Amino acid sequence: MTQAPSTGGGRVEDRRSGPAEGGFPVVGIVGAGQLARMCQPPAVALSVTLSVLAGSEAESAALVVPDALVGSPDDLDAVRRLAARSDVVTFDHEHVPGDVLAALAADGVRLHPTPEALRFAQDKVAMRRRLSELGFPCPRWTVARTAEDVGAFGAEVGWPVIAKTPRGGYDGKGVRRVGDPDELADWLAAVGDPGPLVDGVLLEEAVSFSREVAALVARNPSGDAKAWPLVETVQDDGICTEVVAPAPGVDQGAADAATDMAVRIAEALEVTGVLAVELFEVTDEQGRPTFLVNELAMRPHNSGHWTIDGSVTSQFEQHLRAVVDLPLGSTEVRSPWTVMVNVLGGSRQALYPGLHRVLAEDPALRVHLYGKQVRPGRKIGHVTVCGDDLDDVRERARRAADHLRGVHDR
Amino acid sequence: MTQAPSTGGGRVEDRRSGPAEGGFPVVGIVGAGQLARMCQPPAVALSVTLSVLAGSEAESAALVVPDALVGSPDDLDAVRRLAARSDVVTFDHEHVPGDVLAALAADGVRLHPTPEALRFAQDKVAMRRRLSELGFPCPRWTVARTAEDVGAFGAEVGWPVIAKTPRGGYDGKGVRRVGDPDELADWLAAVGDPGPLVDGVLLEEAVSFSREVAALVARNPSGDAKAWPLVETVQDDGICTEVVAPAPGVDQGAADAATDMAVRIAEALEVTGVLAVELFEVTDEQGRPTFLVNELAMRPHNSGHWTIDGSVTSQFEQHLRAVVDLPLGSTEVRSPWTVMVNVLGGSRQALYPGLHRVLAEDPALRVHLYGKQVRPGRKIGHVTVCGDDLDDVRERARRAADHLRGVHDR
Repeated sequence: MTQAPSTGGGRVEDRRSGPAEGGFPVVGIVGAGQLARMCQPPAVALSVTLSVLAGSEAESAALVVPDALVGSPDDLDAVRRLAARSDVVTFDHEHVPGDVLAALAADGVRLHPTPEALRFAQDKVAMRRRLSELGFPCPRWTVARTAEDVGAFGAEVGWPVIAKTPRGGYDGKGVRRVGDPDELADWLAAVGDPGPLVDGVLLEEAVSFSREVAALVARNPSGDAKAWPLVETVQDDGICTEVVAPAPGVDQGAADAATDMAVRIAEALEVTGVLAVELFEVTDEQGRPTFLVNELAMRPHNSGHWTIDGSVTSQFEQHLRAVVDLPLGSTEVRSPWTVMVNVLGGSRQALYPGLHRVLAEDPALRVHLYGKQVRPGRKIGHVTVCGDDLDDVRERARRAADHLRGVHDR
Repeated sequence: MTQAPSTGGGRVEDRRSGPAEGGFPVVGIVGAGQLARMCQPPAVALSVTLSVLAGSEAESAALVVPDALVGSPDDLDAVRRLAARSDVVTFDHEHVPGDVLAALAADGVRLHPTPEALRFAQDKVAMRRRLSELGFPCPRWTVARTAEDVGAFGAEVGWPVIAKTPRGGYDGKGVRRVGDPDELADWLAAVGDPGPLVDGVLLEEAVSFSREVAALVARNPSGDAKAWPLVETVQDDGICTEVVAPAPGVDQGAADAATDMAVRIAEALEVTGVLAVELFEVTDEQGRPTFLVNELAMRPHNSGHWTIDGSVTSQFEQHLRAVVDLPLGSTEVRSPWTVMVNVLGGSRQALYPGLHRVLAEDPALRVHLYGKQVRPGRKIGHVTVCGDDLDDVRERARRAADHLRGVHDR
């Protein structure tokens, strides 16, 4: 299949309903989690048609987008069906095999981000290697294949060290803090086997950071790039729980340096769509704050959910605008402070009564639920509060998130 | 069919996918125009499932909501199919016959607004009679069945007079300004025939107003009611073209009196959902501004589109919250000024290039397109600009709306 420039309805014969008018693109999303779901509101506004490839009909985005396709991102035929009804294909997650991406690219499908860029979000070793070549500041790192490699790295940078599976990890999965090579014996035994450890284990120094922040940017194929203000991210057990925008107490020069670095990374890696750069804030030898790159994600990211309510243009709208190569929107904040708190699953029964309660208690609260089955600890939504007083805003957001999971002790 | 209190998935056997968890309601909307379409973004956020009854699969909301039903609002069976998959039924427009509404009510379907309330938005004579009984200020009015009736009313209030079909009019349709009874001969000849003129022609004095404003409120079945700030509406040939929020140059006391009147109308008529009260601003005998009720609409309304970008809670979210009896959200503004300008259809080819152009020219512009086939003069979208300087905001919104219709002379 070859893809002509975006011409709208002509190639979507299998859709019940095509785009409104010639020129309006269909965006296909591989995956149908909450990130794809939250693209639907801006798609409605821009008259961009979304099409999703979902794992099941009950998946988060499949519930709100007409005619979801059901299939696996590993299944080339399924991904090709998505591409056949789309003008451009983008991603809800990074878990699309390289051979599937290569086959789509060979078909002539427009992919944003491109497989070449996406690789640096899929493979943490490739990311570390490329960022280091380009001179972007990273924690010290190596690739270990044996216990001796691990021992040598620990002796060099100090124990404990952080071990990561190069591929497939998320939300703290695929990451360990180890004080001894023996603690990695199971992973090292799998090195060389087909799978995420085929090329070895990524080791990084355990950075002594003052906090974690994130720089979010978007870039379109025409090269236009825009960054939102730097935010502080609060993690609990490797899972982001809270985001404060902008990051409090960062001087403007340091914040600008961090967002500028994210833009330069987007340009250097030729990222198209949203790029989240997770950063460690550390103190340099002169006692000034500086930043090391922790992780990259090439899609809308939990650290950017605050933008729906707190910025002129949300990360979801910006991602759509970027992948269809429309001009990017303003990333200005709409409030002095915005706090986003994730809602982690509590009891099934608590959610709708909790929604009633939090809306009654705080008429300015913004609630975003993902339509997911509630399971303990699962991200099932988020809440956002905007305002002038950070302490008040944060307390209201935390309280609402607690009530939505059925916890009423604050 | 009897309707139990909202219990979620159990009764939606014919849906491909039900709501996420017990308690989350399905809202059925009769009609699938842009008002239903713009309910989808807040429905996604609240995890309320929308279901629409569309005139065709290509209708505005049918393009963005899974599994649209196709059928006419006149067709009781079709409306019953919608009700069978819904916990509550609401409306995109007022054109649902009274016998259909009565049959649904007899089935036990939860309707918001109720048929009793909706009647005052469907029948202008019923509205005038009830508001006059309740003491709300209206233009002088009568019902005419003969040329003599028209002549007598013109002699009393002065020529010209405004003639309206009691039912079925919108956007200036079904309204005439007449200087002589002869100009109404065709309408008077239809009086008594089945149709909108069966009971006569509504006549109103031609009010000498300084401008038109609108008060928008929402009320839920529990009786909670909230009003947005009063807005100025600019009409061209009976069609709303521009809305400025808040209405400029109205002193706070007068504005509060107008929004308070709208809340009292919502309470008196027991409206559930959004109520738009279109008002004439006139000068009283002491030279102070006061307001007369022009029209009522019981649904999200063009005068409230600015709330998507300009208020904490949009009218579309508020309508959903109201009809499912969730607590209402804050109606505070997010900017000193918000201007909404309708995009009327120009050329088919102009729209997507126009979108590219306006997004490039004004990164803070908010664009909302309805996915409609472009026809000259048809409302195909709107744009919104928020900011501190009213002249700047208005000029940017007008310019963007022009460019989207392919007019580039500003």
